Amino acid sequence: MNALLRRQLTTLPSLLLTAALLPLSAQATTTEARSERGAEVIRSLNQGENQSNLKAMREEFPFLAEATEAYALGDVWSRPGLDNRTRQLAAVAVMAALGEVGMMRVHAGYALNIGVSEEELKEMIYLITVPAGFPRAIAASQVLSELLAERH
Amino acid sequence: MNALLRRQLTTLPSLLLTAALLPLSAQATTTEARSERGAEVIRSLNQGENQSNLKAMREEFPFLAEATEAYALGDVWSRPGLDNRTRQLAAVAVMAALGEVGMMRVHAGYALNIGVSEEELKEMIYLITVPAGFPRAIAASQVLSELLAERH
Amino acid sequence: MNALLRRQLTTLPSLLLTAALLPLSAQATTTEARSERGAEVIRSLNQGENQSNLKAMREEFPFLAEATEAYALGDVWSRPGLDNRTRQLAAVAVMAALGEVGMMRVHAGYALNIGVSEEELKEMIYLITVPAGFPRAIAASQVLSELLAERH
Amino acid sequence: MNALLRRQLTTLPSLLLTAALLPLSAQATTTEARSERGAEVIRSLNQGENQSNLKAMREEFPFLAEATEAYALGDVWSRPGLDNRTRQLAAVAVMAALGEVGMMRVHAGYALNIGVSEEELKEMIYLITVPAGFPRAIAASQVLSELLAERH
Amino acid sequence: MNALLRRQLTTLPSLLLTAALLPLSAQATTTEARSERGAEVIRSLNQGENQSNLKAMREEFPFLAEATEAYALGDVWSRPGLDNRTRQLAAVAVMAALGEVGMMRVHAGYALNIGVSEEELKEMIYLITVPAGFPRAIAASQVLSELLAERH
Amino acid sequence: MNALLRRQLTTLPSLLLTAALLPLSAQATTTEARSERGAEVIRSLNQGENQSNLKAMREEFPFLAEATEAYALGDVWSRPGLDNRTRQLAAVAVMAALGEVGMMRVHAGYALNIGVSEEELKEMIYLITVPAGFPRAIAASQVLSELLAERH
Repeated sequence: MNALLRRQLTTLPSLLLTAALLPLSAQATTTEARSERGAEVIRSLNQGENQSNLKAMREEFPFLAEATEAYALGDVWSRPGLDNRTRQLAAVAVMAALGEVGMMRVHAGYALNIGVSEEELKEMIYLITVPAGFPRAIAASQVLSELLAERH
Repeated sequence: MNALLRRQLTTLPSLLLTAALLPLSAQATTTEARSERGAEVIRSLNQGENQSNLKAMREEFPFLAEATEAYALGDVWSRPGLDNRTRQLAAVAVMAALGEVGMMRVHAGYALNIGVSEEELKEMIYLITVPAGFPRAIAASQVLSELLAERH
Repeated sequence: MNALLRRQLTTLPSLLLTAALLPLSAQATTTEARSERGAEVIRSLNQGENQSNLKAMREEFPFLAEATEAYALGDVWSRPGLDNRTRQLAAVAVMAALGEVGMMRVHAGYALNIGVSEEELKEMIYLITVPAGFPRAIAASQVLSELLAERH
Repeated sequence: MNALLRRQLTTLPSLLLTAALLPLSAQATTTEARSERGAEVIRSLNQGENQSNLKAMREEFPFLAEATEAYALGDVWSRPGLDNRTRQLAAVAVMAALGEVGMMRVHAGYALNIGVSEEELKEMIYLITVPAGFPRAIAASQVLSELLAERH
Repeated sequence: MNALLRRQLTTLPSLLLTAALLPLSAQATTTEARSERGAEVIRSLNQGENQSNLKAMREEFPFLAEATEAYALGDVWSRPGLDNRTRQLAAVAVMAALGEVGMMRVHAGYALNIGVSEEELKEMIYLITVPAGFPRAIAASQVLSELLAERH
Repeated sequence: MNALLRRQLTTLPSLLLTAALLPLSAQATTTEARSERGAEVIRSLNQGENQSNLKAMREEFPFLAEATEAYALGDVWSRPGLDNRTRQLAAVAVMAALGEVGMMRVHAGYALNIGVSEEELKEMIYLITVPAGFPRAIAASQVLSELLAERH
């Protein structure tokens, strides 16, 4: 139990990190401000770079790009209630379980960028065999393997 | 970055917790020992109780019960590389995304038992709107709502 | 043939309805205004009533409720580029194909409210056998059957 | 081993049954004849009885009922290239993997009617853990358990 | 608004087209006649051309090809109760939601051929974020983008 | 008819093969012995060869490789209660229905290796149109077609 309390306390720093990047726009409720907050989220996950896919999408699918930036990233991904590590690891697990290996790769990359270890990503993919079966886990392992090869 | 390092360090206690419950059987490779380790995992998540569903399954579907206990719980769920909180939150996210609300409820219950807060579970379900859409997130919110009402 | 032409003409009111509610809030970009636009969308589909589910969700899952109202309804469902009939029929088809029969029922109810005929809903469910197979179509037919019985 | 050989031999009647009903209508190409062939398939799987669900569906969803009878049963399920046992066991596996437990129950019932053993059905559900994960296999085991309790 | 009215009016030809091809074969109940009706449906959607995929399938998978032509196209897709625009837009939505991007592309192409606008297709893909999540909508947007580039 | 009887008889060798490999390791309960039994299963399905994919996986994802070999193959696939033909045909059906065409190809290859005919595989894929719809069946037919071209 003490260990549980201790763990509870140790999540504070990552919450503060999230908080640190949000002061300017956490209360933002206009679409423009939400989009800007989404762009900040991406840069915090993507080594300071904007997402190049989003830029291309903005020309042809402006509503979808805005929804991705203002809603998915600006509203959901910027929420303070979960630390970034848990969020990225859960995103990797969900994308792998749904067979969305392209998106899994994006989130696995973000996870590595914020300090999640290769071993943790591999554990998460191993875990996927239970809720979603072996084909999804094996496909995810192959995509992760490619990503790690590129990074090395 | 310091925050990241600090967070990395703070996961140690939860790893130690996992380690603390495993000393007897971590190296177990016989089916019997793996099943016993699976039973320990359940008890550590389920307030010291065995899983009653497993007992019923053991009579009619002995291989499936053994696979659940020895493989899903004894091999996968007992791995030390991820802390229990991250694992349960990811399990909740994956079950919600796949539409497996019954299993989501089980893992949400375990999560609460080991100190995950209601707010964190709600954040995870909110997050699910992005990878899996609103119907799955809303269905999960209704099941979580029932679970929380029971607990209060 | 005449029936087709007649149906075609009867879509005009629903187009006009969409048009009628847009001028006021189409440019809305604050979360509050987007939520209000979402509430208008529901009332236009739900015989002037608010969605009672949303009210309950707002207490326990305020972000999810806001996302449903401001994003799903206020941003997506209120877009002018598709008429309400096409949107509701597509929503019925998608929900049936994904096995989300509860949501299918909600959208089938909205579709009936705005003048989609029972026959059109049945055709859409029949169509679902091709992309998603017979179990999903048959499950959808049973849920639609219950809804129609209630309405009669 | 003996049990395996014995089981192998007991499939002969179901093959002969398939053969017996095919000569009359195998060349049927009108919708009426295909529907009649579908009705024969059901009776051969359902202890001589028609499917009561189909009768209800015929009133409200006549095209869907015709498609189920003439296409799903009359065209697909009546094909001679696979024996009935293999077809029913595969249907049980597929329905379980897709989470369609209602349809799985129907096909598990047909399987029992044509001589598939309870043990074979349980093996198939156990197998499902590998391609589709544990939640789908466990849900299928619970539905099969109910069916077996009813039959005993 | 004017654009909406204009679009509404432009659906008349596609309705008339459906009507025009139905009198001849609507009562067809032999497999041959149903297949011929299916081939007519394809030609009406595919700028007068037969589907080349179907021709290849006919050699190796004759039953599947016949089912596609006689059932999926000849029975389901030729039904008079929904106009072609609604049917194609719903098919695009369903295929995108199920992650079947190859088939989505085929139906998006048919939709463009019968006068559905690029904007309407983009709206439909944007809508998919709500029932099926962002990864499916984004994947669909990329495939549609390729199709539009080819057409320009 | 004769063809059916003949096919029935040709399943005997594959049953005997299963029987032949079981006496040695059926009681194995250590992970090492279960893995060895899994390797035997692969060799019996893969013309005496080990699975090259598994070897690569073992280096980067050792737990996943062990789970595949000891659990999926050693525990599940080696069970005596279903003959190899039924198991492989069901695996092909399930993988096709889930859209896992890569895994479907692997199991279709195993099926051919143990004497399942091309026609039986085609029948199984045709059957998939009913539970899972046409896109999954057509995608599976294309992958099977490639496999058959390679084998000829």
